[in-house]
Amino acid sequence: MSTVQVDLGDRSYPIYIGSGLLGQKELFSRHIVSKQVLVVTNTTVGSLYLQQLLKSLDGYQVETIELPDGEIYKTLKTTETVFDTLIEKRFNRDATLIALGGGVVGDIAGFAAACYQRGIPFIQVPTTLLAQVDSSVGGKTGVNHPGGKNMIGAFYQPRCVVTDTSVLRTLDNRQLRAGIAEVIKYGLIRDPQLFGWLETNMDRLLNREAGALAFAIERSCINKSEIVAEDENETGIRAILNLGHTFGHAIETGMGYGTYLHGEAVSIGICLAADLSQRRGWLNDSEIARITDILNNANLPTESPRQLTVDRFLELMAVDKKNLDGRLRLVLLKAIGEAIIVADTDTAKLEATLMIR
Amino acid sequence: MSTVQVDLGDRSYPIYIGSGLLGQKELFSRHIVSKQVLVVTNTTVGSLYLQQLLKSLDGYQVETIELPDGEIYKTLKTTETVFDTLIEKRFNRDATLIALGGGVVGDIAGFAAACYQRGIPFIQVPTTLLAQVDSSVGGKTGVNHPGGKNMIGAFYQPRCVVTDTSVLRTLDNRQLRAGIAEVIKYGLIRDPQLFGWLETNMDRLLNREAGALAFAIERSCINKSEIVAEDENETGIRAILNLGHTFGHAIETGMGYGTYLHGEAVSIGICLAADLSQRRGWLNDSEIARITDILNNANLPTESPRQLTVDRFLELMAVDKKNLDGRLRLVLLKAIGEAIIVADTDTAKLEATLMIR
Repeated sequence: MSTVQVDLGDRSYPIYIGSGLLGQKELFSRHIVSKQVLVVTNTTVGSLYLQQLLKSLDGYQVETIELPDGEIYKTLKTTETVFDTLIEKRFNRDATLIALGGGVVGDIAGFAAACYQRGIPFIQVPTTLLAQVDSSVGGKTGVNHPGGKNMIGAFYQPRCVVTDTSVLRTLDNRQLRAGIAEVIKYGLIRDPQLFGWLETNMDRLLNREAGALAFAIERSCINKSEIVAEDENETGIRAILNLGHTFGHAIETGMGYGTYLHGEAVSIGICLAADLSQRRGWLNDSEIARITDILNNANLPTESPRQLTVDRFLELMAVDKKNLDGRLRLVLLKAIGEAIIVADTDTAKLEATLMIR
Repeated sequence: MSTVQVDLGDRSYPIYIGSGLLGQKELFSRHIVSKQVLVVTNTTVGSLYLQQLLKSLDGYQVETIELPDGEIYKTLKTTETVFDTLIEKRFNRDATLIALGGGVVGDIAGFAAACYQRGIPFIQVPTTLLAQVDSSVGGKTGVNHPGGKNMIGAFYQPRCVVTDTSVLRTLDNRQLRAGIAEVIKYGLIRDPQLFGWLETNMDRLLNREAGALAFAIERSCINKSEIVAEDENETGIRAILNLGHTFGHAIETGMGYGTYLHGEAVSIGICLAADLSQRRGWLNDSEIARITDILNNANLPTESPRQLTVDRFLELMAVDKKNLDGRLRLVLLKAIGEAIIVADTDTAKLEATLMIR
């Protein structure tokens, strides 16, 4: 087991990474405050791993909720069902909420934990590669609004993250690839060595070699935790984590939540950001080719959905959270391994990028 | 104008207290970040003071929402209407939300500000005495659940509080008295001088003498800000602010939100807490009489509603946020001006207290 520490003063916490951690009772008891524990999972993950987790929670007063599986359920309405259970079972302020699942479960459960009685302890047990390398770390929680992704939420840090790499054995291929998109992102924004490693080790990841997965997860968590420690509430540098996300969120919202997996939409978004970066004179043909190649090697989509018109794209991007004072802000690349946040978007160039199909 | 500073590190903010502050444009512009401003008010306050506030917001892109008036609307559903407007108007992360109203408006608007895009700037403009002396200060925001009061919310501090004492001229008598209950509370928990002042100046407050009101508000804000600075997230001492509130919340929930004003329920709750304190041997007959007298002088209710059975009372109190690990915690009084938090509730004594009608 390796441990990556997220340094946030009195909100610091460890990320435990290793095989078989779901069965390590002590990892959980170390962070649970009272007897009351609510496990929030979904039907898919629940049928696979809930019993294993419950064994590690023997002796606690455990309640469970199985949410329906899918991004379309990441709503305020679903969050309310979590509140209803917490109140019905008379859970108090020191009850612990455990999220067992992917990004959707973690985002909903984390937001419920942030709001129930103005905040109760919370543990992330991410079960998708995407959640393990990205969404379970850093305290972003929340739900979607019909008008935009993650529009309602909170910055709320977990007490710990328990990342059991053995659960990735049952992850479907599409979900695995979606997670790899976020690993590629870390390489692109600040870790050229990781990007180079991915160029030569993609097959090992796709074949789910334990050592390769553990390396990619740990390296991603280190990158993420360093950025989050520097800028917890995203007033500055943390925004570089959103490379490809403003485009990606527009695709997810525009095509209907669930049509594209988050990582798939981000993959397309990375290509669009790379294209716009080239139009700004920052990336050359060879760098563009390396970026397209690595996403293709991961079997990730790299082209915008034809159904999304440029006007609709711009409209959806306008409401994105990264925009301040009405101006569109985008994360672009100066080079592979170096991100830049730009607010002075050149509309003609942006439209040219969005027109590529 | 006087200013009380709430010291919370990078979340510190000023409370401006004075007559006519609604018209002081500069107080607002000092704390508004971008052009986008959403004013949330209710129909009652909006018809009286919205135009005056809008004059001070001349030059900004201002949107307004008028919520229906009343505690029964302090729900997640109402909060959603605020999200809908923010998204529909494409408000960004640096938009400012201004709450113009009493505790209900401030709690809903503050919670919406806490959650929209994971937090946008927020200004409190409290228009009831209760909001001015208590709920606008300290960052508690949230809404009710059918199963309990303020069960869903966030600790989220405003950028400033603008307390215009002249708006109290139009406040109805019942609301004024409900606010006085919270002023009495500060005297009871930690400010015996304030309690003494209230014993001799209650008529001046009830007659709305400007000087008396300003003194009571400033003194209350100082008490509250000192406690909040010590314990922002209520892990310890801040709980003394809840004197009478565990009983009071049970009355509010049990009788249906809106039957009793919050301050009225707290007044009854203070009497119950005082009675239980005496049963514990802490208050003597003379202190009990002083407490009952001052609440009576303020024309506040001091007796539990007959409809609430002891069993129902206990059930409602069990879900209150002040309970940790399933044990009921209560704020009691060792003396006038000295509160104590007890977790070792003697059930027989508590039932005896609840039986008084």
